Amino acid sequence: MAKSLRVGVAGLGVVGASLIGLLRRQADALASRTGRAIALAGVSARSQRARGVDLTGVPFWPDPVALAREGDIDVFVELIGGADGPAYDAAKAALMRGLHVVTANKAMIAAHGLELARLAEAKGVALAFEASCAGGIPIVKTLREALAGNSVRRLYGILNGTCNYILSRMETDGLGFDACLKDAQRLGYAEADPSFDIGGLDTAHKLAILASLAFGAKIDAEAIHVEGIESITPADLAAADELGYRIKLLGVAERTAQGVEQRVHPTMVAKSSAIAQVMGVLNALTIDADALGELTLIGPGAGGDATASAVAADLADIARGVILPTFGRPVAALEDAERIPVQRHEGGYYVRLAVVDRPGAMAAIAARMGELKISLEAIMQKRAARDALPSEVVPVVLITHATSESAIRAALDLALKDGVVTQKPQVIRIERA
Amino acid sequence: MAKSLRVGVAGLGVVGASLIGLLRRQADALASRTGRAIALAGVSARSQRARGVDLTGVPFWPDPVALAREGDIDVFVELIGGADGPAYDAAKAALMRGLHVVTANKAMIAAHGLELARLAEAKGVALAFEASCAGGIPIVKTLREALAGNSVRRLYGILNGTCNYILSRMETDGLGFDACLKDAQRLGYAEADPSFDIGGLDTAHKLAILASLAFGAKIDAEAIHVEGIESITPADLAAADELGYRIKLLGVAERTAQGVEQRVHPTMVAKSSAIAQVMGVLNALTIDADALGELTLIGPGAGGDATASAVAADLADIARGVILPTFGRPVAALEDAERIPVQRHEGGYYVRLAVVDRPGAMAAIAARMGELKISLEAIMQKRAARDALPSEVVPVVLITHATSESAIRAALDLALKDGVVTQKPQVIRIERA
Repeated sequence: MAKSLRVGVAGLGVVGASLIGLLRRQADALASRTGRAIALAGVSARSQRARGVDLTGVPFWPDPVALAREGDIDVFVELIGGADGPAYDAAKAALMRGLHVVTANKAMIAAHGLELARLAEAKGVALAFEASCAGGIPIVKTLREALAGNSVRRLYGILNGTCNYILSRMETDGLGFDACLKDAQRLGYAEADPSFDIGGLDTAHKLAILASLAFGAKIDAEAIHVEGIESITPADLAAADELGYRIKLLGVAERTAQGVEQRVHPTMVAKSSAIAQVMGVLNALTIDADALGELTLIGPGAGGDATASAVAADLADIARGVILPTFGRPVAALEDAERIPVQRHEGGYYVRLAVVDRPGAMAAIAARMGELKISLEAIMQKRAARDALPSEVVPVVLITHATSESAIRAALDLALKDGVVTQKPQVIRIERA
Repeated sequence: MAKSLRVGVAGLGVVGASLIGLLRRQADALASRTGRAIALAGVSARSQRARGVDLTGVPFWPDPVALAREGDIDVFVELIGGADGPAYDAAKAALMRGLHVVTANKAMIAAHGLELARLAEAKGVALAFEASCAGGIPIVKTLREALAGNSVRRLYGILNGTCNYILSRMETDGLGFDACLKDAQRLGYAEADPSFDIGGLDTAHKLAILASLAFGAKIDAEAIHVEGIESITPADLAAADELGYRIKLLGVAERTAQGVEQRVHPTMVAKSSAIAQVMGVLNALTIDADALGELTLIGPGAGGDATASAVAADLADIARGVILPTFGRPVAALEDAERIPVQRHEGGYYVRLAVVDRPGAMAAIAARMGELKISLEAIMQKRAARDALPSEVVPVVLITHATSESAIRAALDLALKDGVVTQKPQVIRIERA
């Protein structure tokens, strides 16, 4: 058998502890599958007293950068987190030394992926990050390897379990956003400060990585239009249900003739679609590619064991000698894709309006829509018990046929100015799924 | 750039023609992704006039074995089909010569996979077969690579689009089996002789391959208990619907303390499960693994382009120098897993009975169930319009709690002997999903 692969693990949180447990439990199977033992040869953490992990005999490094620079290791596993700081310093130091790097750090890859990929390429080592997107679901491997003969047209996914849990609970239990968020926090599905998840930024980091892999483009997290789920109300979920939709926070990336569109926002998806069935903390990704067609992957997007499974798969690849270009092609071959701003997005829209209850109000709105060449697929005017509107205002839901973002925004601005709509309309994009 | 990878393609049916189209269309992308050109360097087919494929300048071989033995190629792509005959002869000849082999041939891998894997291993070449299972869905790669750090507990899947199309149509349109089969044939979803698909053998070949990959066991297609979908009636689908289930032809492989259970049969799955949502010709696989948890992949299981996508992924791996053990570990490390016969299967059962309409008949059946320690979860007695039973007979559906196959069969044999049941009962296993 070949020499063992010596692994240094930096960060002993839930994922780090799960990984060390996995490497021990599966030691024989991993050796049989890869032809080499995978040995824990160094650990770095704030405290040596890690959660239930026996570190007897494992070299301990208080400083992750020191482990990266001086540890007797072949692979540096970065599980510290954060776009910058020690995670980035240590990953960079490891690559510069010619070590392979495996990371679960989406923020770091979204911010510095290109620079780190260049370094990895120059040194001929792997920079692997399966665990950074959708936990245990092998979407990086699928995009980089299984789709090597395809052009991806579009991908869309549920990439944040916190948001999907909250939206699922709101829908099934008819509860408000705040109540569901509190429940998610109580169950450990949401952080004490949940803004990163519910605001859509976590999804955006993952989307930036997936879009780069899918389209062979330079990672461009700043190109992403991001909206969170804070504004979604039970009234929206009830209307969606009635119209045959579910609301999901999706990350969507699409290649068009003009460039690449990347956006994260609450989205209406047909109830019959595979992605609409994904409830609770699960994640899912649908990829639409020219040869393959539509492929959907569904699984646990977080959790120590599921994430450790993805890290272990990256380690197994490295042990087997599989060192692939970080984003599926050499960095020099990655394209600077044209950014398509969301104002140029085209698609159907769900619009919920508070319309003044007087003759001609709806006609005025319809006229503004007509001026901007927006045609309507459905109009629903109905007062539900849970609508918190004054009695002189009528809740109206519109579903438009495909139109442009700029047209719908202009029409709604005009309706507001006309005084027939009393508050900022709720606008949710509809995604073909 | 490295030397091109010279590919010989044997078999120019739908998949072969799609593959050649794909290799040409994606030539630049494949070269960028793999670092090498992938060049078509030989073709073998019955006739040189292939479907819309320009073969100008490509060496043509009427005999696939001759292409394998003498072609100026690095990889032999076998798209001929059939467990034996020219496919097997040519694949074997290619491996013996030290060529990589890529195949879409599930029957050949199920029958000769172990022997061919030994040959590939001895020569240090790849034997790749992503396209053999579930068309474009990367389930071989997922099991062999993404799950390298996991122990798989169970996998179950819809692996035959013909059967899923027929069952979906029967359910949504309330039609009988024969009418849906005819429709499937008219649409090209079923062969003129459909027995291989609807009888479950096609699913069994794929399941044998997946079970070997999942459990690190020697492929053992003969261990599989196989039942087809011919006996499923609209009455079963209606009862399933009412009880919260759908009927799917599943291939199921499970590792238990005793060994490996492998079975293919119509199965009741909860309507809320991901696998139950998969309708029409789509395929799907759910894998339950110790670290990852449950992962579900859904996509096109057949069709020229989708299957060519899987072949191209295998070629890209080979071009990138990724040569992995055929079944995920060296052949010598593959286990002879104990076969668990279906009589020892344990689970819930759906039973549809034609019960004599006289006092005490149901009590007699319930008594027999009790004798064999079978407890009932639900009893449904209702005459539907579509039941074709004489008036002195009552249709009864039972759902049992978990019991053993041998117990349920014994109880039903006794009920038949008691004369309270007038025809062979319909028995459908329930699968947790």
